[in-house]
Amino acid sequence: MSDERIIVLAHEKFPDRAKTALGVMRYGDQQVQAVLDRDRTGDRVADHVPDVADAPIVGSFEDGLAAAEEAVDALYIGIAPIGGGFDESWRDDVRAAITAGCDVVSGLHYFLNEDEEFAELAAEHDVTLRDVRDPPDDIGVASGNAGDVDADVVLTVGTDCSVGKMTTSAEVVAAARDRGIDAALIPTGQTGIMIEGWGSPIDRVISDFTAGAVEDLVVERGDDYDLLVVEGQGTIIHPAYSAVTCGILHGAMADGLVLCHAADREVIHGYESVTLPPLADYVDLYEDLAAPVHETSVVAGAVNTKEIDDDAAAADAVATVADELGVPAADPVRDGADRIVDGIVDGVIEK
Amino acid sequence: MSDERIIVLAHEKFPDRAKTALGVMRYGDQQVQAVLDRDRTGDRVADHVPDVADAPIVGSFEDGLAAAEEAVDALYIGIAPIGGGFDESWRDDVRAAITAGCDVVSGLHYFLNEDEEFAELAAEHDVTLRDVRDPPDDIGVASGNAGDVDADVVLTVGTDCSVGKMTTSAEVVAAARDRGIDAALIPTGQTGIMIEGWGSPIDRVISDFTAGAVEDLVVERGDDYDLLVVEGQGTIIHPAYSAVTCGILHGAMADGLVLCHAADREVIHGYESVTLPPLADYVDLYEDLAAPVHETSVVAGAVNTKEIDDDAAAADAVATVADELGVPAADPVRDGADRIVDGIVDGVIEK
Repeated sequence: MSDERIIVLAHEKFPDRAKTALGVMRYGDQQVQAVLDRDRTGDRVADHVPDVADAPIVGSFEDGLAAAEEAVDALYIGIAPIGGGFDESWRDDVRAAITAGCDVVSGLHYFLNEDEEFAELAAEHDVTLRDVRDPPDDIGVASGNAGDVDADVVLTVGTDCSVGKMTTSAEVVAAARDRGIDAALIPTGQTGIMIEGWGSPIDRVISDFTAGAVEDLVVERGDDYDLLVVEGQGTIIHPAYSAVTCGILHGAMADGLVLCHAADREVIHGYESVTLPPLADYVDLYEDLAAPVHETSVVAGAVNTKEIDDDAAAADAVATVADELGVPAADPVRDGADRIVDGIVDGVIEK
Repeated sequence: MSDERIIVLAHEKFPDRAKTALGVMRYGDQQVQAVLDRDRTGDRVADHVPDVADAPIVGSFEDGLAAAEEAVDALYIGIAPIGGGFDESWRDDVRAAITAGCDVVSGLHYFLNEDEEFAELAAEHDVTLRDVRDPPDDIGVASGNAGDVDADVVLTVGTDCSVGKMTTSAEVVAAARDRGIDAALIPTGQTGIMIEGWGSPIDRVISDFTAGAVEDLVVERGDDYDLLVVEGQGTIIHPAYSAVTCGILHGAMADGLVLCHAADREVIHGYESVTLPPLADYVDLYEDLAAPVHETSVVAGAVNTKEIDDDAAAADAVATVADELGVPAADPVRDGADRIVDGIVDGVIEK
């Protein structure tokens, strides 16, 4: 949330396996006072991640409070174990945060509000437990009206999960703003919701309301901005998660798509029997599936090259994708998102 | 549920607006002792619906008990108001059923188990309130293994909602059994679940688990039958419900698809700005979207001609669909599902 002063919990996983922590540190307006990682006590954030604001790394919430330069507003849970459970080794930190009068923000499947100790303690200390993965109660069936908003709407879609749709969305918003375009991120997952302090965890809503949940978000912000960038989820060919992807595609009624791909990916992560089809097939699938509800087209590519060390090889991988798609492409982390915004300007805004 | 003796509530809506009641009466093994419709008291089922077992139509559950030829096991709620709420004018009937020791089966969004009066009364009388729209608790993420079952799997897909996917699925199972094929229905919606006494209401599961919920059903029955017919939901181009359709498509990993279409339908019901594309486009969308996870093809068409009075005109409509698809087609209600089974035999079983 804007300008909140926070401590981020990332025990034993900072920075490489702390995707949520890093997302908030890189794209949020929050002021990070300390990171908790009991394996890296005494290090600083700058020792590991050069491009975010520096902060001390400490072993416990109390140590974080002591190290903080300003009063702390909240503790953010910045990691998730497989399955999304609560790791009991974090209980002391959460308890200490609540007792110190801090809110606790979590994207776990395990809701802090349903933990008896935390709920009682939070009531006693008048703090809020924000379970961002708990969808709003008032979500319903889509009306099919997201296309009526004033803003141009762009959606990030992927060739797989974990290829960088959140990062691409955030980088595109930042690059568009640098160019004077009044852009906003529409968050559909836990990290985006933590960054923006707003959004819906689309993967947790009732399946009948998937499109409706996205539509609500687009309609809520759509007349206040010139460009909305909707954070996509999963991939349309995912054996388990395609329902979420499809609901977002139809609910967002996007005017343009940014296809996100990890350069090294050949099979669906965790479903190795599913081979990734050629990029051109993805383009056809996304465009053809969207068309009956709202015509759209792929206007840019985002290529995640983090597994490629050599800069020239990474540039080649990006160029290959641009060539296959016939639209501008970039690695938004390595290159910035300027070329992706070029594609959005040409394919959507000035079209 | 098999051979259960039941009373079916269909107040003010029997038969034309009592889709669930009619589905259970037509395809279930239940013995219907009476139908409740306070607007048709004194009529008989046979006065309105010729092709199901006859029963008296009465105005209240007590009258139904009095008219029943055998002891009654359960009351089925056979209608749903828009929004799926509970109509308070039914309270006396539900109360009377519970008090008489009968289970109550409901597909409403409003769960009988969460109604304080009904829950207390049910505990007192040791009866079960079966909310079939309440998904099982143990549903999770799909593994992508539905394709490994011994049975051939066929899925009904649609050009819109309410085109006859449930009816087609049930008629195909019946026609296949008549031909000696050991077939079973995999129910994914309330009517199918009531008919079979088993299944998952896919539209009510968490979106991340949509494919997983279908996979569970296919895997549970897949080694016990030679042919599974999975009841599809919605349409892949639906502005609100496509997520459910997409999750079922990937979760079921079907070997063949039956495309269901209402002959008179030109726009998506309730979303009139969305025009139905040509049938060939649907074939491409369903087949291309399924292919990366599990190759499949449309092997038959099911045409709902109930809005066409003239038999010759109905036959023409069916012939047109068969011609467009290049596979056998039939109206399963008007013609029986034999030609659809022909398509399944040719395109799946003997392929």
